[in-house]
Amino acid sequence: MALLTADDYRASLSDGRTLFYRGRKIDDVTAEPDLRVAVDHAALDYEVAHNPTHRDLAVATDPEAGDYSAYYRIPRSGDDLLARSRLIETVTGLGGTMVTLIKEIGSDALFALQRVLEGKELERARAFSRHCRDGDLAVAVAQTDVKGDRSLAPHAQADPDLYVRVVEENADGIVVRGAKCHTSISANAHEIIVLPTRAMGPEDADYAVAFAVPANAAGLSMYVSSYAAGDRNSFEFPLSSRYKMLETLTVFDDVFVPWDRVFMCRQPEKAGLLALTFVEYHRFTAVSYKLPLVDALAGSAALIAQMNGVLKAGHIRDKLTQLIIYAETVRGLTELAAQRFRVGEHDIAYPDPLTTNMAKYTFATRYHEMLEYVQDCAGGLLVTGPGGEDWDSPDVRPVLEKYYRAAGSAEDRLRVMHLVSDLTARDFGGYHAVLAVHAEGSIEAEKMQIFRAYDSTRALAYARRLAGL
Amino acid sequence: MALLTADDYRASLSDGRTLFYRGRKIDDVTAEPDLRVAVDHAALDYEVAHNPTHRDLAVATDPEAGDYSAYYRIPRSGDDLLARSRLIETVTGLGGTMVTLIKEIGSDALFALQRVLEGKELERARAFSRHCRDGDLAVAVAQTDVKGDRSLAPHAQADPDLYVRVVEENADGIVVRGAKCHTSISANAHEIIVLPTRAMGPEDADYAVAFAVPANAAGLSMYVSSYAAGDRNSFEFPLSSRYKMLETLTVFDDVFVPWDRVFMCRQPEKAGLLALTFVEYHRFTAVSYKLPLVDALAGSAALIAQMNGVLKAGHIRDKLTQLIIYAETVRGLTELAAQRFRVGEHDIAYPDPLTTNMAKYTFATRYHEMLEYVQDCAGGLLVTGPGGEDWDSPDVRPVLEKYYRAAGSAEDRLRVMHLVSDLTARDFGGYHAVLAVHAEGSIEAEKMQIFRAYDSTRALAYARRLAGL
Amino acid sequence: MALLTADDYRASLSDGRTLFYRGRKIDDVTAEPDLRVAVDHAALDYEVAHNPTHRDLAVATDPEAGDYSAYYRIPRSGDDLLARSRLIETVTGLGGTMVTLIKEIGSDALFALQRVLEGKELERARAFSRHCRDGDLAVAVAQTDVKGDRSLAPHAQADPDLYVRVVEENADGIVVRGAKCHTSISANAHEIIVLPTRAMGPEDADYAVAFAVPANAAGLSMYVSSYAAGDRNSFEFPLSSRYKMLETLTVFDDVFVPWDRVFMCRQPEKAGLLALTFVEYHRFTAVSYKLPLVDALAGSAALIAQMNGVLKAGHIRDKLTQLIIYAETVRGLTELAAQRFRVGEHDIAYPDPLTTNMAKYTFATRYHEMLEYVQDCAGGLLVTGPGGEDWDSPDVRPVLEKYYRAAGSAEDRLRVMHLVSDLTARDFGGYHAVLAVHAEGSIEAEKMQIFRAYDSTRALAYARRLAGL
Amino acid sequence: MALLTADDYRASLSDGRTLFYRGRKIDDVTAEPDLRVAVDHAALDYEVAHNPTHRDLAVATDPEAGDYSAYYRIPRSGDDLLARSRLIETVTGLGGTMVTLIKEIGSDALFALQRVLEGKELERARAFSRHCRDGDLAVAVAQTDVKGDRSLAPHAQADPDLYVRVVEENADGIVVRGAKCHTSISANAHEIIVLPTRAMGPEDADYAVAFAVPANAAGLSMYVSSYAAGDRNSFEFPLSSRYKMLETLTVFDDVFVPWDRVFMCRQPEKAGLLALTFVEYHRFTAVSYKLPLVDALAGSAALIAQMNGVLKAGHIRDKLTQLIIYAETVRGLTELAAQRFRVGEHDIAYPDPLTTNMAKYTFATRYHEMLEYVQDCAGGLLVTGPGGEDWDSPDVRPVLEKYYRAAGSAEDRLRVMHLVSDLTARDFGGYHAVLAVHAEGSIEAEKMQIFRAYDSTRALAYARRLAGL
Repeated sequence: MALLTADDYRASLSDGRTLFYRGRKIDDVTAEPDLRVAVDHAALDYEVAHNPTHRDLAVATDPEAGDYSAYYRIPRSGDDLLARSRLIETVTGLGGTMVTLIKEIGSDALFALQRVLEGKELERARAFSRHCRDGDLAVAVAQTDVKGDRSLAPHAQADPDLYVRVVEENADGIVVRGAKCHTSISANAHEIIVLPTRAMGPEDADYAVAFAVPANAAGLSMYVSSYAAGDRNSFEFPLSSRYKMLETLTVFDDVFVPWDRVFMCRQPEKAGLLALTFVEYHRFTAVSYKLPLVDALAGSAALIAQMNGVLKAGHIRDKLTQLIIYAETVRGLTELAAQRFRVGEHDIAYPDPLTTNMAKYTFATRYHEMLEYVQDCAGGLLVTGPGGEDWDSPDVRPVLEKYYRAAGSAEDRLRVMHLVSDLTARDFGGYHAVLAVHAEGSIEAEKMQIFRAYDSTRALAYARRLAGL
Repeated sequence: MALLTADDYRASLSDGRTLFYRGRKIDDVTAEPDLRVAVDHAALDYEVAHNPTHRDLAVATDPEAGDYSAYYRIPRSGDDLLARSRLIETVTGLGGTMVTLIKEIGSDALFALQRVLEGKELERARAFSRHCRDGDLAVAVAQTDVKGDRSLAPHAQADPDLYVRVVEENADGIVVRGAKCHTSISANAHEIIVLPTRAMGPEDADYAVAFAVPANAAGLSMYVSSYAAGDRNSFEFPLSSRYKMLETLTVFDDVFVPWDRVFMCRQPEKAGLLALTFVEYHRFTAVSYKLPLVDALAGSAALIAQMNGVLKAGHIRDKLTQLIIYAETVRGLTELAAQRFRVGEHDIAYPDPLTTNMAKYTFATRYHEMLEYVQDCAGGLLVTGPGGEDWDSPDVRPVLEKYYRAAGSAEDRLRVMHLVSDLTARDFGGYHAVLAVHAEGSIEAEKMQIFRAYDSTRALAYARRLAGL
Repeated sequence: MALLTADDYRASLSDGRTLFYRGRKIDDVTAEPDLRVAVDHAALDYEVAHNPTHRDLAVATDPEAGDYSAYYRIPRSGDDLLARSRLIETVTGLGGTMVTLIKEIGSDALFALQRVLEGKELERARAFSRHCRDGDLAVAVAQTDVKGDRSLAPHAQADPDLYVRVVEENADGIVVRGAKCHTSISANAHEIIVLPTRAMGPEDADYAVAFAVPANAAGLSMYVSSYAAGDRNSFEFPLSSRYKMLETLTVFDDVFVPWDRVFMCRQPEKAGLLALTFVEYHRFTAVSYKLPLVDALAGSAALIAQMNGVLKAGHIRDKLTQLIIYAETVRGLTELAAQRFRVGEHDIAYPDPLTTNMAKYTFATRYHEMLEYVQDCAGGLLVTGPGGEDWDSPDVRPVLEKYYRAAGSAEDRLRVMHLVSDLTARDFGGYHAVLAVHAEGSIEAEKMQIFRAYDSTRALAYARRLAGL
Repeated sequence: MALLTADDYRASLSDGRTLFYRGRKIDDVTAEPDLRVAVDHAALDYEVAHNPTHRDLAVATDPEAGDYSAYYRIPRSGDDLLARSRLIETVTGLGGTMVTLIKEIGSDALFALQRVLEGKELERARAFSRHCRDGDLAVAVAQTDVKGDRSLAPHAQADPDLYVRVVEENADGIVVRGAKCHTSISANAHEIIVLPTRAMGPEDADYAVAFAVPANAAGLSMYVSSYAAGDRNSFEFPLSSRYKMLETLTVFDDVFVPWDRVFMCRQPEKAGLLALTFVEYHRFTAVSYKLPLVDALAGSAALIAQMNGVLKAGHIRDKLTQLIIYAETVRGLTELAAQRFRVGEHDIAYPDPLTTNMAKYTFATRYHEMLEYVQDCAGGLLVTGPGGEDWDSPDVRPVLEKYYRAAGSAEDRLRVMHLVSDLTARDFGGYHAVLAVHAEGSIEAEKMQIFRAYDSTRALAYARRLAGL
């Protein structure tokens, strides 16, 4: 029941899991340099619990469980949700705008399971939740199926395995087959919770399944994305050389799951609700972990504008103001979503869905416009400037020092320039940009959720009254 | 010290004030039909205090003052600000999206004066504040000078009277000359508080003046705008036939002001601060009174879409969702501005300026886009449809009833159509639209205030850390 | 075959047509003041043909027909389309941003009929086209049915008359019943062409009908919209006091149409094509007549900014630049649509649909944003200023002259202010705004047309090549 | 006077020029793998002249010069400009959305020099122009100085070398010192033309200098940017593995320039005009070379949407339509800019500046929004998918083939996905995005140019007439 250290965490990952990376089978996730960056980054979620500065935020205590990671505290109030948001923001801030996610997403799923389920399934979810909490585990969630042709339902696909499905049910448990994609942090998690990705009809019953498996389960293979692979020097890549999250194609090749880890089996009528309830938490996690990113955009734009000597230009002021409005609207709505919390099934609190989705929508739909403003403040040097090897060269550095000084020293300016480049113009930036559009549900999904979550009673009644109806 | 009734209020306005309307001198503001509509509309601020439904919100009590209008309660906390916001929203809702403003704006100015002033001027402001509260008075604020050529400072204008200025100072008081424009509700107020409109330099000392005069002061003439004049039938103009606010050109032709009503005299160094402090309250008043308007847009768009039978169309859903996001972002940020209150000089609370300005900016900059969406949901009938006389005609009505039915009856549909037309396509709508851009400060002023109010410490420090500086 | 004068036109309208306005039956459209404004405005289409300045643009000649109105010239080339565009722009410019439309829309329909029809129907259309040309007639088009519940097809409506339909067919002709709405300039036209409003299925055969009737046909009643009714003084309403277009609800109460005026009868398979072909011309007419409007926005914003003394302010420059980009993009795409003309059936040219729709879409979707910019340049005086009676009053005018001067005289400034107010903030402005969204097809219809008209071959092939497919 | 082959071109670059890349001095630009990619890409400009498909577009002929590269044809008409635009578009299309630029930018500068100069300087420019044409040379333009603190003028910088300046003038020529940045294709050009970057005052006379030097001039060092360095496999990086442009920091360390290559020396009054005239051509080059890029966005979005099976979804249609409008508005305005050509000094034609800048502004300000739409159509797989080594692995590929099939095969879909990823989410995409904002002048510069180029006469006169002035 002890809080793991970062080293404990690293050690625990050498468990025989089946991983592939860049075409090769990887024996130890901590030994492969690219993957190690991600492991070390994720380990932040363990470090904060042992860091006096963050301990109050990161560690919860209760009589039954003793000290445990605050990520696993079941929220009962707006204050709990606010504290959770601050913890996520803090650790993501330490993680260079990249969320660690190894406890965030898992606890989102655990809260959802404990709200939606009833009876014996609820008991299993509660037991599994205690298991995660007490073991201080890193927990991934595999939700998005590979989906095949998006215009067809799960059962109507050319290959029946394009959504994860139950292929066998017996006294001991179930056997599942299929694949999930975009599974974040699974390569360095202990457990993987599998949730349905959408509402389902009766014909899709086999696909209405939720369960948990350890990362080294037999038959489970994970194919780590090669996106943004490769060693990077830290002068040129101040963020991407240090902060990294891994995604996998997560393949279930007839994986056996014992009943005590099965949370839903062939209950299509509940699939949509479970998917949506998870998202209620997960979008709040999302807007919380976006806060360091929006601050980084606003802050780096102001910093580079100052170093370029353009802080007084009217159009630069205007762009900085847009960045402020953007960052602070996302922040304000996130805070408000917690303050407007509601209490759901089994006395578990959740953030106001309308406000959460508005925060996420605001973040997602203006993100690319903000990139334009940051790039505009920085200048073309973002993509035409010198790199780390230039800086390290005794022949080249003096030239750079002479010619790249502006309102600040060449070194400071180049460092900030590379920060902006990493953040907005290279693969790390592209990762953030694509996540803005797609992670935790698409923009379209957020719009639908806003339309549904909005209580139109007041506005409709008011319009009727004004019209004299 | 009693709370006036609406009739008390109406009666009190026949006080010999000098008013001009449509080229004529008006002897009694309550007897001129167009102006009477505005008086009756403003009287709502008195009615709510006697209405059991609203009394708790509208009436404050304290040992010294007894019962008094809650508008005049000096805010000490976020809850006070929230209650004030709800009162403003409620009365504006009763007023058909048009703010009454006769106590809102005056109390905004009184709070500002009591925060910014010191010494004997503070005592005068406090005494005047008690006078307004105890007399349950309607109080206008004349702030915007006519300004002449905007590229020149007050003292540099071709005519020295283009900003209100002190022309004489003697033992008893001061004499002022000049004109203010856009003075809302002055024609039906008891008192008029005059504030400087901008920061001023030493050469503008004569223009750095703040004071209060009764509406019937000698030498004071008010020229009521003819905008949206004329009698209107309520079928065709459901809002503008009933809800109206008056603006005046307010001319001070050597008006004497005794010292106990002079709050600032030739103190240019304080002019900017007073102007800005007033705006801190007044923009919060603004976003509070915009809430019924944004609800009316969202509600009437949904209602007319339903009546047209287009509620299922994807692009209509999309527009309704945009209206929801708009209305609810303004609402959310307004609520948050109160929750993030600060306590200023002399222990008077004020809403968070950054959040208030973001709410106002969001409202102002997307307003016209929202009009487009509402009009899109409604259809061309907004400007090609039948009017009240058509509806009243026994020959015409049956034709309309047959041909204008859709998913609702022709009557309901035409009523909602006229609501939308009044709200978005006629002079009442134009009034709202121009106010969105200009009232309580321009969009540019809001952007500047956001840039100034933003504390960039966190974001800059974070960017520096990420860049390794 | 002579070109009518404006007086000929006015005289010709006293023909016993059945008109209703503001609940009353109107005996003579030229005698009712509000309607007379519209008649005089429309008469511009006749005046230009007799005005030496415009005659070259306005009059066409050919051996068979002699001199005739250039509106009726069948386009054979891009130059013909450009000339047509310039004529429409010129007359609309004379008409104070309001299109006259009495020959524009009719000729749009005549071109479409002569492209789509074949056989005896084509002969009828050609004969009718000569009739309009040779008689120099004013011709309205009634296309939009009242439609009832938009989610239902014509035949599925609760009342079968909610789309115009054939109720009888006999040796002499057909009998039609139903109503069209938004019928522009019908009240002051000679002829009314009726076109189907949409694609139709076999069950809607009765509704697939196109024909022409004289404005005084038995059984035809027109209910003129009361929108923007009432006398206006020209100081306060410089545009709406002089320029006006009328719309009617156009009711066919068993109107008989002889065969030689029937262009389509129960041919649902052709209804969509005819509707769309008309729109190909009519949207080009639309973007042509929008050019004076976008110029008026850009010009009046610059003029009022200059008079306010704010022309050097960065944010004002920015808004003026946005207005320029807007106006000139619409203008440029309109010009290009003609240059990229195509030649359709029966050798009749038409403007490039993709480019035309992009011009219209650009105009429509940014219109409200432009209103915001114009209003921002002008100031709050738009809705708080003095009116015509104030200006005419010897008591009030001197006060206005003193206090409303800025970088220009008070008179010039107030005149431009009222121009902007009429154009953007009152019912005339609302009319333009709603037309921007709905006239000549909705924004959604334009988007669909762009998607369909775009030839994706080049882009798809290029993407395939880049991907190595 | 022969047209060089691609091999001639490659061979000619081994000329002893001083190049640095990634901290090392490079002896031969064609031997360094990363740089070789750029050389091969640039060689396209030579290949097209020998390719029968493109020869007509790529080769010009005249009696004096014989056959020569059409890039160097001095434009005399709109047709010449259109042909030039098509040539640039065609070669950029072959170059995978990346402009080759080795003749485009140089000829832009040569046209500008030949319009702006007079007398002996004009003769030198003409002679140099013939030299480039007859030698079929690759010509870079170094315009943007490193600039130091942007809030200070050239002469006011802490280091006088932060703008390139004349340090000595003698009988034979001048000596220059300083550095230019963002110099595109200089590393693989034969000649480098140096132009002033901005308007200058009398105190900046030393900085008002324009000249040409060969790429291997003594004292000239070029530091190639390391942006997007490194070897890439073509499955994962279909564009960036093959198409590349190099930028250098171009340092003049007391470089001698003989008088016959000096085009401007200490003529600050002409600096701004020369800078601007170059930009008149160069922005037209820019919008021409952006056309394959906007097609690639529109095409790849449609292709991946189809492969994902989401082509029928309303919101996807909407995004594809936005991409069409974007791509086609840029294309349309580019075409129109040529059609509206003007003839400038010395009978040299140039594209209409207003229209050119509107095309560029439209491209630049909506680019990031378009990236969002493309990414939205593609899905999260953009950043979570498998790479080239995965695809090459016999263990992994079958898994990918099974699970990544959708409405198309896994291979096709992954190839298009990587195309989109390269184009929008990785460093190649970031390069395009930053160029959209900064290349050929910033967005702010384009706005200023639009404001200046617009002839407001028509709109102002119209507004005055409407206002009755």
